[in-house]
Amino acid sequence: MSAPRVVYLSGGVGGARLAHGLGAALGAQSLRIVVNTGDDFEHLGLHISPDLDTVMYTLADMAHPARGWGLETESFEALAMLQRYGAPSWFALGDRDLATHLARSEALRNGQTLTAVTERLRSALGVEPQLLPMSDGPCPIRIETLSHGIVPFQHWLVQSRGELPVHAVHLSSSAPATGEVLAALEWAELIVIGPSNPYVSIDPILALGGVRERVAARPVVAVSPLVHGAAVKGPLAQMIPALANRPAGSDAIAAHYGALLSLLVVEPGDEAGVDGVSVLATNVRITERAASLRLAEEILDWYRQRP
Amino acid sequence: MSAPRVVYLSGGVGGARLAHGLGAALGAQSLRIVVNTGDDFEHLGLHISPDLDTVMYTLADMAHPARGWGLETESFEALAMLQRYGAPSWFALGDRDLATHLARSEALRNGQTLTAVTERLRSALGVEPQLLPMSDGPCPIRIETLSHGIVPFQHWLVQSRGELPVHAVHLSSSAPATGEVLAALEWAELIVIGPSNPYVSIDPILALGGVRERVAARPVVAVSPLVHGAAVKGPLAQMIPALANRPAGSDAIAAHYGALLSLLVVEPGDEAGVDGVSVLATNVRITERAASLRLAEEILDWYRQRP
Repeated sequence: MSAPRVVYLSGGVGGARLAHGLGAALGAQSLRIVVNTGDDFEHLGLHISPDLDTVMYTLADMAHPARGWGLETESFEALAMLQRYGAPSWFALGDRDLATHLARSEALRNGQTLTAVTERLRSALGVEPQLLPMSDGPCPIRIETLSHGIVPFQHWLVQSRGELPVHAVHLSSSAPATGEVLAALEWAELIVIGPSNPYVSIDPILALGGVRERVAARPVVAVSPLVHGAAVKGPLAQMIPALANRPAGSDAIAAHYGALLSLLVVEPGDEAGVDGVSVLATNVRITERAASLRLAEEILDWYRQRP
Repeated sequence: MSAPRVVYLSGGVGGARLAHGLGAALGAQSLRIVVNTGDDFEHLGLHISPDLDTVMYTLADMAHPARGWGLETESFEALAMLQRYGAPSWFALGDRDLATHLARSEALRNGQTLTAVTERLRSALGVEPQLLPMSDGPCPIRIETLSHGIVPFQHWLVQSRGELPVHAVHLSSSAPATGEVLAALEWAELIVIGPSNPYVSIDPILALGGVRERVAARPVVAVSPLVHGAAVKGPLAQMIPALANRPAGSDAIAAHYGALLSLLVVEPGDEAGVDGVSVLATNVRITERAASLRLAEEILDWYRQRP
């Protein structure tokens, strides 16, 4: 039974975990991972791509398992010295992580695309599936808060720990999807949307010209990023009431993606109120690699057995 | 007996060692240190000032005593990861050292002068004497080799370990000395030239408009960077025969600076052939701090007791 050709849309931590299982279940040849770059930002002159790094480190088995971000084996000597110099230190730059930012930034300055440098970095770390940044241009998300106006995404998420109440998410429409992303979507037989924040991780991908209609032309499985109304990580549970005016729950995820979805995968007990889309209830807590592989295989089984 | 007002001209390792003794002998109020920036360069998008860093780390008691460059307490995690990415790794970037380059580069990008950011960094590390970069603009030294044409200084010194025979040193005349440097020279009662390479550490300072005549108007003491014909560090001993067509020795140092000098300090036994200038023979090997302080005090004694 040959593996279907899958394009996987991913944000950071949650998405990265399922990427691992999909890679194991499918093999690298049948998987292309499109990663959100809406939270990329410049910091101390470095181009930082948090979601690309998280997915890359996770697939390289180098990610810190508990923290979710950054590397498992990491030191923070440079950061301590930056603090001594009074430089901004709100973003936790690890020493080895710094090398990723330095190598990427240098390549971009030399005219390489983000797609090309990502390809080079993931190869160097032995990551086999293609990692495709959604765009080679800047697509900065901005968060409109109730109290502090519009703030850059990372400042909101990291510096303010996502605690400033959100009034709206402003996606950027300035840069296009890459040709590689559009070609991958054409190539795909199945689209899987990871258990990532719909507003700030998946919508930025879907909003790029040419993406949504290509996704919509294929079977789409989304994995809910909520378990019993709580986000696996991040501020999603607080965002849904503010942005969708309803309680945080898998039904809100189903309503958000709407007609795009063929299947929503939810935690058992979270099926209530999910209308107009098939539901697969199974454990979506996939911190362990075995759980990620099991979830990936259940999704592929559904695809193969669907009517 | 109040301390004379001293401006000290310095390159990297050798110069930094005497800076420590001068600071201890004079007190910070009576010392301004003008540092060569002719070997500054861009690397992985970072502005690196090797001589400023060496002097700053040495005065902060943070320098690696044996290596001469970099920090005593240092790790190289980022460098190892950069190597994994195939990024250039010939320049040994330590993790804490990286913070210096990141903080400096960020400040320069934000429009601060090198003088201003140096002031901020040295204060953060508790360094008391003023450190004055010779220029706020780029003054890149280029080395004309016999075999490989003209190469950037750091590539010649570090990547080729100074082993490519030198045909000529090309100083840059594109950027001026800072106002702070010219004011310091006006303020000075005594100029001390450190035991640094005359061609690539001191000449770049003297070559800047307005510097040489201000130095020449004051008593000038130079400390020979040679001990029995060998350089304390670096490729000087090979450069003198190539550039001055004479054996490496303190007499060649005296001839190089010529009428600028009031006193040349040489290692006992190295007085031979030093013409036309007073000579003080004393131990110029000053790896230990006590030796550096002793040498500084001998220089100040000469100044106070001169006719």
